[in-house]
Amino acid sequence: MMEFRPIQRALLSVSDKTGIVEFARALQQRGVQILSTGGTARLLRDHEITVTDVSEHTGQPEIMDGRVKTLHPKIHGGILGRRGKDENVMQEQDIAAIDMVVVNLYPFAATVADPNCSHQDAVENIDIGGPTMVRAAAKNHQDVTIVVNARDYDRVIAEMDAHDNSLTFDTRFDLAIRAFEHTAQYDGMIANYFGARLPQQKSKFPRTFNAQFEKKQDLRYGENSHQQAAFYVEAQPHEASVATAVQLQGKELSFNNIADTDAALECVKSFAEPACVIVKHANPCGVAIGTSCLDAYDRAFKTDPTSAFGGIIAFNRELDEATAKAIIERQFVEVIIAPVVTEAAQQVVASKTNVRLLASGQWPSERTPDFDFKRVNGGLLVQDNDLGAITEADLRVVSKAQPDAAQLQDLLFCWKVAKFVKSNAIVYAKDGMTIGVGAGQMSRVYSAKIAGIKAADENLEVAGSVMASDAFFPFRDGIDAAAAAGVKAIIQPGGSIRDEEIIQAADEHGIAMVFTGMRHFRH
Amino acid sequence: MMEFRPIQRALLSVSDKTGIVEFARALQQRGVQILSTGGTARLLRDHEITVTDVSEHTGQPEIMDGRVKTLHPKIHGGILGRRGKDENVMQEQDIAAIDMVVVNLYPFAATVADPNCSHQDAVENIDIGGPTMVRAAAKNHQDVTIVVNARDYDRVIAEMDAHDNSLTFDTRFDLAIRAFEHTAQYDGMIANYFGARLPQQKSKFPRTFNAQFEKKQDLRYGENSHQQAAFYVEAQPHEASVATAVQLQGKELSFNNIADTDAALECVKSFAEPACVIVKHANPCGVAIGTSCLDAYDRAFKTDPTSAFGGIIAFNRELDEATAKAIIERQFVEVIIAPVVTEAAQQVVASKTNVRLLASGQWPSERTPDFDFKRVNGGLLVQDNDLGAITEADLRVVSKAQPDAAQLQDLLFCWKVAKFVKSNAIVYAKDGMTIGVGAGQMSRVYSAKIAGIKAADENLEVAGSVMASDAFFPFRDGIDAAAAAGVKAIIQPGGSIRDEEIIQAADEHGIAMVFTGMRHFRH
Repeated sequence: MMEFRPIQRALLSVSDKTGIVEFARALQQRGVQILSTGGTARLLRDHEITVTDVSEHTGQPEIMDGRVKTLHPKIHGGILGRRGKDENVMQEQDIAAIDMVVVNLYPFAATVADPNCSHQDAVENIDIGGPTMVRAAAKNHQDVTIVVNARDYDRVIAEMDAHDNSLTFDTRFDLAIRAFEHTAQYDGMIANYFGARLPQQKSKFPRTFNAQFEKKQDLRYGENSHQQAAFYVEAQPHEASVATAVQLQGKELSFNNIADTDAALECVKSFAEPACVIVKHANPCGVAIGTSCLDAYDRAFKTDPTSAFGGIIAFNRELDEATAKAIIERQFVEVIIAPVVTEAAQQVVASKTNVRLLASGQWPSERTPDFDFKRVNGGLLVQDNDLGAITEADLRVVSKAQPDAAQLQDLLFCWKVAKFVKSNAIVYAKDGMTIGVGAGQMSRVYSAKIAGIKAADENLEVAGSVMASDAFFPFRDGIDAAAAAGVKAIIQPGGSIRDEEIIQAADEHGIAMVFTGMRHFRH
Repeated sequence: MMEFRPIQRALLSVSDKTGIVEFARALQQRGVQILSTGGTARLLRDHEITVTDVSEHTGQPEIMDGRVKTLHPKIHGGILGRRGKDENVMQEQDIAAIDMVVVNLYPFAATVADPNCSHQDAVENIDIGGPTMVRAAAKNHQDVTIVVNARDYDRVIAEMDAHDNSLTFDTRFDLAIRAFEHTAQYDGMIANYFGARLPQQKSKFPRTFNAQFEKKQDLRYGENSHQQAAFYVEAQPHEASVATAVQLQGKELSFNNIADTDAALECVKSFAEPACVIVKHANPCGVAIGTSCLDAYDRAFKTDPTSAFGGIIAFNRELDEATAKAIIERQFVEVIIAPVVTEAAQQVVASKTNVRLLASGQWPSERTPDFDFKRVNGGLLVQDNDLGAITEADLRVVSKAQPDAAQLQDLLFCWKVAKFVKSNAIVYAKDGMTIGVGAGQMSRVYSAKIAGIKAADENLEVAGSVMASDAFFPFRDGIDAAAAAGVKAIIQPGGSIRDEEIIQAADEHGIAMVFTGMRHFRH
């Protein structure tokens, strides 16, 4: 049967040498003849594996310091020849069939990650022969096996053992797709790197933006049931996030679950103290810090119990039994996420089998820059993710009244929350707890009104609280409204042409006001 | 000087034959020897251009129906040889330098776009030799010119004429990046296509998601000034959009301008009648249809003049002089976009040099499916864009009261608006005009409250209007609130476990209620 042709000859030439000796030995033990080049050949010979050099096989010496070694008809005819069709020409041209290609590419990413990498270094690390063999073998997956990743060695050997030294079509096809994924990613990286280094370049953004993501899971549907969707993750996520999270129990995550969990987790990362963030419809509806997870949750829940119903709850500390119990007994919850979940907490949540429980892993205190995207019809807006953060030292008190120590802490707390509320965002807070969240309004004064209405509806007292605004106030009306509600201190970026008028309003009301100099629109 | 080495030998092998005859002739006239293969060689000979076949040049026949023709040391040594370094080995091996490679790849996209394309057809259309020459020449851009696009032919000839038949390093580098952009895009396409066809695949979403976008412009900054940003567009946008729009005048578009313009334009596309959408902070703050552009604008403006200040205004008809005048005289506006802008309208807007005026071009009535993205830390949510739309025939009247003809028109109008308002979305409308927009709240009843407050603040009468809700009502409180405000008809998806209770509430209030069966969350 065509499908089960034993592998007789393999070409091995790898940059990542992980497991290659063991794999080559396993192939040799199964009677496979091994062709190889350069460093791979030396390594295999050092381990007493019999290897034929590609140059010996082709009769063509390796030239130009290795730039041309495998680009030869004997190699590519051997890879690309169609079994059952090209035998005559192969015999005529003395081309021996190559049944397996094991090649992975030099890590261009690692080379260019070195800040001292010169243009010449980068260019030298563009592999030409490797991708050609990878692509040729992948194209001819009907007859040839391509292996680009050491993770696949065991699987290949196991399958050879199960099928008389051959592989199934499905496996060859699967490996062929991996091969094109590998070359697509490789050339995308090259295009990104050099595309950001054109002489006329004015920014770090390359001429074309090339991205590859790996599917983590298909989703039941997207934001709405008539939209199909999938969740993709970066090949190497740089920190603990919703993308790295392990689901410990519960129903499948939905599209909106993942988006909201991301918002909740990224927000809760902002706090040094034990903190809890409850998100609903992409907005924090309750945020608090506390002496413990449980304390933080209790207080975050109080902000808006109505919205917390069916919400997403994130913590920045290990989820313990007491907190898990409080949540499960008190409310319907879609997702709970924490860096770690204790065994006991997991058992508590187990009583509600639908609740999605996630452990994200610990994140570093130093955040990593990355790109944020906003999709528009026909295009993509690409920007730095918003890692802007301020400390007390960055604040400028612009009012006559000075915030006291407690107000200062609340202002900084409130500011971190406002950053994650959809713009225009107004947040009222007191004692490390949100009192009212005014989200997503087209004019700032309405966000302030909503924050006040919500606080009143939950019987939370705005009087004596502080207020954060994600962007400057265009008019004094927002300050007047805040004063009327009893706000005692305000944090905002400043920068309006009417700043003077706005500061005067604060002074009239005896409100302390600080400027951050940094805006946090989030739409 | 090394940089100015005249081009003496070029290899031409193109799938897209546009302009190749003229280009080859121009090269020949400049003394360049031409190597070629297959169809390109035949075409050039037909036009009396002297061509050496690659097989003649290498001494190796083309084998396996063309699978192996250029994969030969004489070709790749000729391309990859380092001038000033590899001359000895080139002479020794009888390798002639190839100074220019003109190759573009078979349109894999076109092949697989055919619904009858078989696995075998797709595989056969994976080019191996072409990408190898493209990548080799691009790597050796220090000495070699790679041309992958017919658009570059004129520029190459012009530069040869200006520099004694040679090209500058900057041009070779620029063209080399284009080459890697081409191969990255090509292999990304292959990975996407086959990655969606794995046997274990359960959805249309490939195992890896590979995307390439082309930079349209660097932006001054992103959503906030501490974030750098750029605007990328699809290589072939499928319809008129913010990505295709031509800026006729005004300041540079900002990140937020582009995002808001997209929201405004996509919303205004929903209407068959002359319509105007005003967007602020990603939400429509006023939408109306009218007898003309001017009428629609007048009415859209009335919904919320405060938010319309500094807004983005989109039309689905040619922008005429009268409408332009009304806008410019009445309000501060950031962006105006319409499919077409008359000369006279352009002159009116010219009086405000800062106003960004855009012409998007006409869009087709039939919308094209595409992917929408939502970025999360470490990953990407990919979903179908929301093209869900309903007509009168899809509506199910669930209340005792039947909507009258005018109400029905308003319900459908209102529904189209709600789709573009951030969730939870509640919209009040009357006579084809929004009366109040309640956006982005964590609980639906607050969105309803806000819509009512805003209407009252603008002295717009809610009594007698209709209401749209982007998702079902979880409780009857939203219906009771609407009734209290005087709403006479409601459109919503339905599907709550409390639908019965909610229908009963509508019946108690004598409200007509229709279900769409389709939700439009938009976060």
